[in-house]
Amino acid sequence: MAHSAPIGVFDSGVGGLTVVRAIRAALPEESIIYLGDTARVPYGNRGEATVRRYSLNATQLLIDRGVKAIVVACNTATAYALPALQRRWSVPVLGVVAPVAAAAAERSQTGHIGVIGTRGTISSGCYPEALGALNPALRSVQIACPLFVPLAEEGWLDGAIPEQVAQVYLEPLVKTQVDTLILGCTHYPLLRPAIAHVLDRMMPRKVALLDSAQATTSALVALLDREGLRAPSGSSGVLTTLVTDDPKGFAPLSSRFAGEYIGQAEHVDIHDKEWSDELL
Amino acid sequence: MAHSAPIGVFDSGVGGLTVVRAIRAALPEESIIYLGDTARVPYGNRGEATVRRYSLNATQLLIDRGVKAIVVACNTATAYALPALQRRWSVPVLGVVAPVAAAAAERSQTGHIGVIGTRGTISSGCYPEALGALNPALRSVQIACPLFVPLAEEGWLDGAIPEQVAQVYLEPLVKTQVDTLILGCTHYPLLRPAIAHVLDRMMPRKVALLDSAQATTSALVALLDREGLRAPSGSSGVLTTLVTDDPKGFAPLSSRFAGEYIGQAEHVDIHDKEWSDELL
Repeated sequence: MAHSAPIGVFDSGVGGLTVVRAIRAALPEESIIYLGDTARVPYGNRGEATVRRYSLNATQLLIDRGVKAIVVACNTATAYALPALQRRWSVPVLGVVAPVAAAAAERSQTGHIGVIGTRGTISSGCYPEALGALNPALRSVQIACPLFVPLAEEGWLDGAIPEQVAQVYLEPLVKTQVDTLILGCTHYPLLRPAIAHVLDRMMPRKVALLDSAQATTSALVALLDREGLRAPSGSSGVLTTLVTDDPKGFAPLSSRFAGEYIGQAEHVDIHDKEWSDELL
Repeated sequence: MAHSAPIGVFDSGVGGLTVVRAIRAALPEESIIYLGDTARVPYGNRGEATVRRYSLNATQLLIDRGVKAIVVACNTATAYALPALQRRWSVPVLGVVAPVAAAAAERSQTGHIGVIGTRGTISSGCYPEALGALNPALRSVQIACPLFVPLAEEGWLDGAIPEQVAQVYLEPLVKTQVDTLILGCTHYPLLRPAIAHVLDRMMPRKVALLDSAQATTSALVALLDREGLRAPSGSSGVLTTLVTDDPKGFAPLSSRFAGEYIGQAEHVDIHDKEWSDELL
C-alpha cells in the first residue's frame, strides 16, 4: 500500500468529524477520505446485525477508494463490527473504543469509570470488556443517553434544555465513585460544556471527561509508524467528504463538527451487499 | 384484488402505529400488515431522493405480500413519495397529508393553520400546497420540530423537558392568528398533552390540535367503500407487524403507539432495488 494513499474514516453521520479534527491537527500531511453514512444515520439505536452490515458496506466503499488504513469513527460500529472488518480486510482497521478505554484506565484514581453512549454501544458491553481486559479491578458504570445525538445534530448545545437532559441521564453517577467519564459517542464532545457543567454541580468530586478523538489519533499515529505508512513529510493532506444522503445541509453541520470549513460533500450511493453469514 | 386481502401500512418506524390504532378501531374486521422500516428510521431528516427510494422499497414489499390497499403512515414519505408510488402501482395508495389538511381547512375559523412536522415534511411544502389547493385564502405557518421524534421514541412524553422543547419550537406561533395546529408527523400524537399544555399557556386563543390518524382513517373507509374492497362483515382482522431491524425492543414501544398489545414483530430484509429515474 502506497504511503501517500489517504486514510479512510467513517461514521454514521457527522459525529466522526470530531475524530477527523484531531487527526488533521496531529497529522496535517495525511489525506483523509471521510464517509458519513447519512442515508442510514443514526446507528446508535439499531441492532447488531444491521450495524455490522452497514459497517461492512461503508468499509468496502473506502477500500474501493484505495485507502491505506481505516478508522471506524463511530462507537456503535466499533462495538458491533470491528472484528468482522478486521477479519475481512488486510488493511489495518482501528476503532474508537480501545484507545479511549486505555486512556481512562490510566487516568482514573478511584478505578471507577463512567461510560455514556448510544443504546447500541452501551448494550454491546464493549467498554466494560475493554476496561476489564486492561485491569480486572476497574469498575465501570454505563448509561445510555439516546437524546444526546439528536440534541447535538439540532445544535442545541448549551442552556437549560441540554443541561436538564444531561441531569436526568447522569443522575445515577452521583452515588458512585466515578472520577473519569468516557464520552463514548463521537457526537458527545459537542455537548462537553453542558455535561461538564452538570457534573460540576452534581458530583462530590471532579470528574475528567475523555473523548475518543485524542486517544484514537495517538493510536493512529502509532499504527502508521509501526506499519511504515506515514505520508511523506512536507506533503499537504486533503480532506474529502462523502455522504450517502443529499449533501445539501451537511456542509454547515459538518464544519461545526470538523472545526474547519467543509464545502459541499460528494454524494455516493451504497447498495447493500450480501455478506457471508460468517461475517454477520 | 380479493376484498379479504390485508391493508398494507408503512412508516419509517413505530409512529405509523398511531394511524393503525385508529384504523383498527374503525375497521376491526380488516387485517393489516404493518411495516416499520426500522433499519432506516428516521425518514424525517433525509433528502427527497433517499426517502423516495426507501418508500418504493417498502411499498414493493407490501405489494409482494398481496395487500389490497396501502396507507403511507408517514408524513415525510407521503410528502416526497406519494405520487411516485401511485404512478408505480395500481393498488390504491393513500397518504396522511391530504386528509388532515382537509379536516384542518374545515375546522379553522381564522383561516390561519399551523403545521408542525419533521424537517423533510416542512421543507417539502406539502401542507401549504394541500391547504392552498383546498382554499387559496388559507394561511399556513410551518415549524420543523426535529427533537419531537427522538423525545417520543425515548418515551419522554410529559414534564419539564418536552414542554420546554415545545415552548422553543412553538414560540413563533404566538404572534399569529393560528387557531388550528396540524400534528404533521405520526409520532407527535404521543406528545399531544405537552404540546396542548404549552399552547394553552402561550396562545391568546384556543388552538385545536389535529392529527392524521382520524382523518386518514375516514379517507380509508371512503376509499374501501368506493372500490368495493371492504372485508366481509363479521370477519376478525389480524394485525401483523414487520420490521427491517432487530425486532427485539420493538414490542414495548410498538404497543405504546398502537394502543394494543403487539408481540414480537417479524424481521424482514429490504435490499435496495434500482428504481427508474422517472420514479426517483
